[in-house]
Amino acid sequence: MDLIWIAPAGALIALLFALYNAYKVKRADQGNDKVRELSGIIKQGANAYLKRQYKTVCIFFAVVFLVLLVLSFIKPAGMPEGLINGFTPFAFLTGGVFSGLSGFLGMKIATAANGRTATAAQNSLNKGLRVAFSAGSVMGFIVVGLGLLDTSLWFILLKYAFKLSPAELSGAMITFGIGASTMALFARVGGGVFTKAADVGADLVGKVEVGIPEDDPRNPATIADNVGDNVGDVAGMGADLYESYVGSIISAVALAFGAFGVPQEGASTDRGALFTRMMVPLILAVVGMIGSVIGTFFVRCGTSTDQKKLLGALRRGTYIAAALFAVCAFPVVYFILGKENLGIYGAVVSGLLAGVLIGYFTEYFTSDTYKPTKKLAKASETGPATIIISGLSLGMRSVIAPVIIISISIIASFLVSGGNLGDGMNKGLFGIAISAVGMLSTLGITLATDAYGPVADNAGGIAQMAGMDETVRERTDALDSLGNTTAATGKGFAIGSAALTALALLASYIEEIKIGLGHIGKTSIEVGGKVVDTVSATITDIVNYYDISLMNPKVLVGVFIGSMMAFLFCGLTMNAVGRAAEKMVIEVRRQFREIAGILEGKQRPDYTSCVRISTKAAQHEMIFPSLLAIIVPMLVGVLLGPSGVIGLLAGGLGAGFVLAIFLANSGGAWDNAKKYVEEGHLGGKNSDAHKATIVGDTVGDPFKDTSGPSLNILIKLMSMVSIVMAGLTVMLH
Amino acid sequence: MDLIWIAPAGALIALLFALYNAYKVKRADQGNDKVRELSGIIKQGANAYLKRQYKTVCIFFAVVFLVLLVLSFIKPAGMPEGLINGFTPFAFLTGGVFSGLSGFLGMKIATAANGRTATAAQNSLNKGLRVAFSAGSVMGFIVVGLGLLDTSLWFILLKYAFKLSPAELSGAMITFGIGASTMALFARVGGGVFTKAADVGADLVGKVEVGIPEDDPRNPATIADNVGDNVGDVAGMGADLYESYVGSIISAVALAFGAFGVPQEGASTDRGALFTRMMVPLILAVVGMIGSVIGTFFVRCGTSTDQKKLLGALRRGTYIAAALFAVCAFPVVYFILGKENLGIYGAVVSGLLAGVLIGYFTEYFTSDTYKPTKKLAKASETGPATIIISGLSLGMRSVIAPVIIISISIIASFLVSGGNLGDGMNKGLFGIAISAVGMLSTLGITLATDAYGPVADNAGGIAQMAGMDETVRERTDALDSLGNTTAATGKGFAIGSAALTALALLASYIEEIKIGLGHIGKTSIEVGGKVVDTVSATITDIVNYYDISLMNPKVLVGVFIGSMMAFLFCGLTMNAVGRAAEKMVIEVRRQFREIAGILEGKQRPDYTSCVRISTKAAQHEMIFPSLLAIIVPMLVGVLLGPSGVIGLLAGGLGAGFVLAIFLANSGGAWDNAKKYVEEGHLGGKNSDAHKATIVGDTVGDPFKDTSGPSLNILIKLMSMVSIVMAGLTVMLH
Repeated sequence: MDLIWIAPAGALIALLFALYNAYKVKRADQGNDKVRELSGIIKQGANAYLKRQYKTVCIFFAVVFLVLLVLSFIKPAGMPEGLINGFTPFAFLTGGVFSGLSGFLGMKIATAANGRTATAAQNSLNKGLRVAFSAGSVMGFIVVGLGLLDTSLWFILLKYAFKLSPAELSGAMITFGIGASTMALFARVGGGVFTKAADVGADLVGKVEVGIPEDDPRNPATIADNVGDNVGDVAGMGADLYESYVGSIISAVALAFGAFGVPQEGASTDRGALFTRMMVPLILAVVGMIGSVIGTFFVRCGTSTDQKKLLGALRRGTYIAAALFAVCAFPVVYFILGKENLGIYGAVVSGLLAGVLIGYFTEYFTSDTYKPTKKLAKASETGPATIIISGLSLGMRSVIAPVIIISISIIASFLVSGGNLGDGMNKGLFGIAISAVGMLSTLGITLATDAYGPVADNAGGIAQMAGMDETVRERTDALDSLGNTTAATGKGFAIGSAALTALALLASYIEEIKIGLGHIGKTSIEVGGKVVDTVSATITDIVNYYDISLMNPKVLVGVFIGSMMAFLFCGLTMNAVGRAAEKMVIEVRRQFREIAGILEGKQRPDYTSCVRISTKAAQHEMIFPSLLAIIVPMLVGVLLGPSGVIGLLAGGLGAGFVLAIFLANSGGAWDNAKKYVEEGHLGGKNSDAHKATIVGDTVGDPFKDTSGPSLNILIKLMSMVSIVMAGLTVMLH
Repeated sequence: MDLIWIAPAGALIALLFALYNAYKVKRADQGNDKVRELSGIIKQGANAYLKRQYKTVCIFFAVVFLVLLVLSFIKPAGMPEGLINGFTPFAFLTGGVFSGLSGFLGMKIATAANGRTATAAQNSLNKGLRVAFSAGSVMGFIVVGLGLLDTSLWFILLKYAFKLSPAELSGAMITFGIGASTMALFARVGGGVFTKAADVGADLVGKVEVGIPEDDPRNPATIADNVGDNVGDVAGMGADLYESYVGSIISAVALAFGAFGVPQEGASTDRGALFTRMMVPLILAVVGMIGSVIGTFFVRCGTSTDQKKLLGALRRGTYIAAALFAVCAFPVVYFILGKENLGIYGAVVSGLLAGVLIGYFTEYFTSDTYKPTKKLAKASETGPATIIISGLSLGMRSVIAPVIIISISIIASFLVSGGNLGDGMNKGLFGIAISAVGMLSTLGITLATDAYGPVADNAGGIAQMAGMDETVRERTDALDSLGNTTAATGKGFAIGSAALTALALLASYIEEIKIGLGHIGKTSIEVGGKVVDTVSATITDIVNYYDISLMNPKVLVGVFIGSMMAFLFCGLTMNAVGRAAEKMVIEVRRQFREIAGILEGKQRPDYTSCVRISTKAAQHEMIFPSLLAIIVPMLVGVLLGPSGVIGLLAGGLGAGFVLAIFLANSGGAWDNAKKYVEEGHLGGKNSDAHKATIVGDTVGDPFKDTSGPSLNILIKLMSMVSIVMAGLTVMLH
C-alpha cells in the first residue's frame, strides 16, 4: 500500500468530523427572537468585514502572484531555471486561499454558535460548553483538515503529476508556506486591530466614563466588540494556526530529504523509500488528528463553574489526545524510519512535552488561581500606573520558562535524532523540525479548546444584551474566563512551534542557497582552501563559504535589524490599535452626547457606524506592517547577502520569540487580574482598584490579541520570503 | 618622547579641570538658611544611601575578588598559568573603586550645587545654567580623568613593571572591565530603584491623589525623590558612563594587538611600535578630552527660557568639542598608525557621527517640539490606557533610527579600516572598536550636559520647597526640561557605544578562547581537515573549530537565552521599582492620614522614613539581577561551551540594544508629554488629560531611569564575565 494516501484520507476524516460538529451546532436551539436578532447583527458585521478584508487581500495576492510568476520566468543567461521555483506562485495561492478559508469557515460556525451557546447555557453549564466546544472543534478540524489537504495534495501532485525527484520536491515544498503566512499576517493584524479598537473603545467610554457594564446594549461599540471577537479571535486565529500547522509540516518534509536523502552512513538512498520517509511528518499529523478526534469526546463538565474543574474538563480531552498520539507515533517512526532512527521518536515526544509544559507555565503566569496574577491584581490598589508597571514586569519575567523549555527541547531533539555538528547536522535539524510537528500534532483539539473561548465570550454578550437570566451570564462568564486561559495556552503553542519551525527554516534557507548556487552555474565552491561540489556541499560548507558566523559584521547587523523588526512591527500594530481606539472613543462619546435617550435605553445606538470605524481602520492599518515583513528580508538579502539574511532571521527569532511571550502573558495576566477584582476581591466592581485593572486590561488588549500573536507569523513569513528569494540573493552575492 | 605619558598627563588635566569647576561651584552663593537646610537634608540622605550601598558592594567585591584570586591560582595539571589571568583580581578592584569613585564624587558636587543653582537662578537664567553646568562638568571630567588614569596606569604597569609582551598585555587589559561593569550595574540598578520608587511614590499620592504640586514640602516622599536624583541620575549614571568609557578604550587597546600584532602584510611587528599603536585609543581619548574642555567654555545662554535656544547653548559646546576632536584625531591616526591605516580615521569619525545622529533622533522622538511627543500628549485625552499604548508604540517604532545608524556605522567602520572576512578581519574589528572610542571621545562635555540635568531638577525642588520666587522655579524648570532631552541623548550614547563595544568584545572573547586553548596544552587544532597552530589561528579558525555558526543549535539556544536575559533583567528591575513604589505609596498615605496638619503645612512630614524605604528596597533589589548577569554567562559557558556563549552575547546584544532604546525613548516621551500638558496644552494642569500623562510619566520612570539604562551595562558585563571565564569554558569543552 502506498502510504501517501494516508494524508489525504486523514484530511477527509478531519473535514468530515468538522462537518459532524457543525451539524451538532446547527441542530442546537437557535433561541428566541431577540437572540436571533442579535446573532444576526453580529454575523452581518463579521461577514461585511471579511468581505472587505478579502477584497483588499485579493488585490494584494493578485499582485504578488504576478510578481512571483514573472520571477519564476526570468531566466538570467546561463541559468537552467527561473529566479524562483515555478510552483511557488501557485502554491502561494493555495496556501493563501486555504488559510483564508480556515478563518472564514471557523468564523461562520462561531457566529452561528454564539446565540445557540447562550440558549443552551439556559439549560445547564455542560450544554453551553458542548455547543461552544463543538463550534471550536469545527474550527480546529477545519484547520487541520485543510492543512493536511493542501500539503498532501501538493506532495502527490509534485511526485506523480510533475514527477519531481525527492530533492526537487523538498525544494518546492518549502516555498509553499509563503501564501499561508502572508494571509495569516493580514488576518491576524487586520482582525487584531478591528477587535481591539472596538474592545478598547467600548470599555474606555462605557465602563470607565459612563459606568455601564460590559456588553451593555446601550453601548454603541458593543456590537463592534462582538463582531471583533469573531473576525479577530476566530478568523485571525484560524488563519494563524493554519499557517503554523502547515509551516511545521512542510519544513519537516523538506528537512527529511536533508536527513535521509544526502548519502550518508545508514541512510537509504532508494527513491521510493526516501519519499516514504519524507511523508513521516504528514503521517504523524494524521495520527495526532485521530487522537484529537477521540479526545474531543472526553470533554464534558458538571454543574460547577469552578475554574479548576472546568479547566480539568478541557484538559482531559487534550491530555488523552496527547497520550494517544505519543503511543501511536512510536510505530510510525519505528516502521517507516527504522530502528536506527528511533531517536526521532524522542524528538517528536520532546516537542509534544514542550508544548504541554509551555501551556502549564502560561497558565501559571496568567491565571488568577496562581500567585503572579493575584499579586498583579493587588498592585491595582495603588492605581493604574503600578498595575501597568507590575504587569509589564510580570510578562518580562515570565519569558524565562518558555525559553528554557524550548532551549532544552531544541538541544534534546537535535541530539536524540542523531544530530551532531558534522555529518549528523541534517538529522539533528530534522529532529528539531519534527519536534514542531509533535508539538502541533494535537492541534485539532487544542485549537478547539482555544476557539471555543470567543464563542463563549459572544454568547455572554448576547445573554447580556438579550436580557437573559443572571445565571446564564454567570455560566457564560465562567466559560469565557476559562477561554482566556486556553487562549493564552494556544498562543504558547503558536509561538513555541514557531521557534522550532523557524529554526528548521534556517536550514531550509541554506538548502535553497545551495540550489541557487547551482542555478547560477557555480557547480563547485571553494571552502577553506578545498574545492567542494555544490551539490554535495554540507550545511557547514555553505556556512563557511558565506561566513555565516557571529564574527561577521554582516551577520551581526542582520541580528540588529532582526531584533528591530520584532519591535518595530509591534510598535506599528500597537499604534494602529491606539489610533483606531481613539476614533472609536470619540464616536461613542459623540453618540452618547448627540443621540438623546441612549443611556435610558429608549433609543438604539448606531451600531453600524462603530463597525464601520473598526473595519476601515483594520483595512488601512494591516497593509504597511505586512508589507514591511515582506520587503525587509528582500532588502537585507540584496544589500547584505545570505549572511545578513541568516542574521536577520536569527535576530528576529530571538527577540520576536521572547517579545511575543512577554506581550501574551502580560496581556493575559491583566485580563485575569481584572476578572479577579470583578469577582469581588480588593473592593470588587466599580472600586478604584477595578478601574485600575480596566486600564491594565485595555493596555493588554493589543498586547495579547494584536501585536503578540502576529509575531510568530512575522518570524516565519520573513523566513519564507528569504527562502523564496534565495535565488536572487545568491545571484547578487 | 614616549607617547605613553600622554594618557596619564591627559588624566591629570581632566581631573584638574574637574577641580577647577568644583571650585567654581563652591565659590557660588550657598543661598539663604532655608536653602542650606534643604540642601543639607538631601546631602545627608544621599550620603547615607551611598554609605549603605558601598557597604553591600564591598562585601560583594571582597567575595568576588577572593574567588577570582583563587581561580587565578588554580593551575590544573600541565597548565602553565591559572584558570584566569593573574592581574584580573586586582584590576577588578581598581575598576570597581574608580567606577564607584566617579559616582561618589559626582554626587558630592551635585548635592553641593543644587542649592547654589537655585540661588544663582534668582539672578539670571545664565547664572543658574553656569552653576549647574559646572557641577555637570565636574562629573564629566572626573569620569574621563579617572577612566584615563585607570587604563593608562595599568598599561604602564603591565608594560614597564611586569614587562608583559604586547600579546599578554592585550589579553590582560581586556579582563579589566569586569570590575567597572559590576560596580556600574549595582550603581545603576540600586540608584535606579531608589530614585524611581521615591519618584513614583511621591507622584502617585501627592500629585494624583492629594493634588499638591511636585516637590511640595508637604509631601513626605519629596526629599527621598530629590535624594534619588542624586544617587540614581548622578551617581548611577556616573558609574555607568565610567564603565562605557573604560570599556570602549580597553576593548580597542586589546583589538589593536589583533589588528597590528598578528603578522600580516603592511603591519609592523616591531614591539615598540606595536605598543605605541596599542596606545592610539588612549591618545584619541585624550584628544577628545581636550576638545571637551574647550567646548565647555562656549556653553552660555541668554535670558530666554525657550527650549530650542537653551538646547542650542549646550549643543554649541558639544559640537565645538566634536569638531575639534574630528580635526585633531586625523594627525594622531596619520602619524602613529601611518598613511596605510588612514581608514581607521574614517572609523573614528563614523563613531562620532553615529553618536550625534542617535542623539538627534532621540531628541526627535522624545522632545515635545516635535510631532511624535505632541501626538502622544494628544492620546491623553482618551485616558491613561491610550497614552500608555501610544507611548509603548512610540518607543517601539523609535528603534528603527538607532538600529539603522549603528548598522551603517558597524559596516562602514569595518570596511574603511581595511576589514574583510579573510586576513583583514582583525583590522575591521579594531575599526568597530575604535569607532566606539570616537563616539565617546567627547564624553567630558556630553556627560556634563547630561549630569547637569539632575542638578537643575534638584534646584527646582529646593526653590519650590524654600518658597522662592515663581520666576526662579520657571528658570529651573526650563533648565530641568532641557535636562530631560540631554539625558535621553546621553542614554543614546551609552547604548550606542555599548553596541559597538560589545561587538568588539566578541572578538576579544575569541582571542581569550585561543589563549585558553594554549593553556590547556592544545598547541594545534584541526579545522576543516587542516591542522593549525593555535597561536597563529585566525578568528575564522576558532569560529570553525567551535562551529560558532548560526546553524549550530547551541548558538541558537544561546541567542534565545541572551534575548531572554535582556527581558528578564528588565522584568526584575521593573518589578523592584513597582514593589518599592507600592511601599512608598502606603507610607505616604499613612503619613497623610496619621500625622495631623501635614497638608495644612503646620506639621513637617517624616522625610527620613521615606528615604529609609527607598534605601532598603534598593539594597535588597539590586543583588539578584546583578548576580544573574554574572552567573548566567558562566553557566552557559559550562553547559554549552564557547558557541553557546557567543550566541548568548549576540542575542543579548541584539535584543538588549533594541529594548534599551525602546524603554529610554518611551520613558522620555511620556515625561515630556506630561510637561507639554503642564505648559497649558490640552487643558493644562489638573485636567483629566494631565492626570493621564502623569500615569504615563510614572510608568516611564523605571523605563528610562532603571531598566533601560542598566541594559547597556548588562550587555557588557555578560561579555566581560565570559571573557574572564574563557579559560574555564575551554577546559570543559
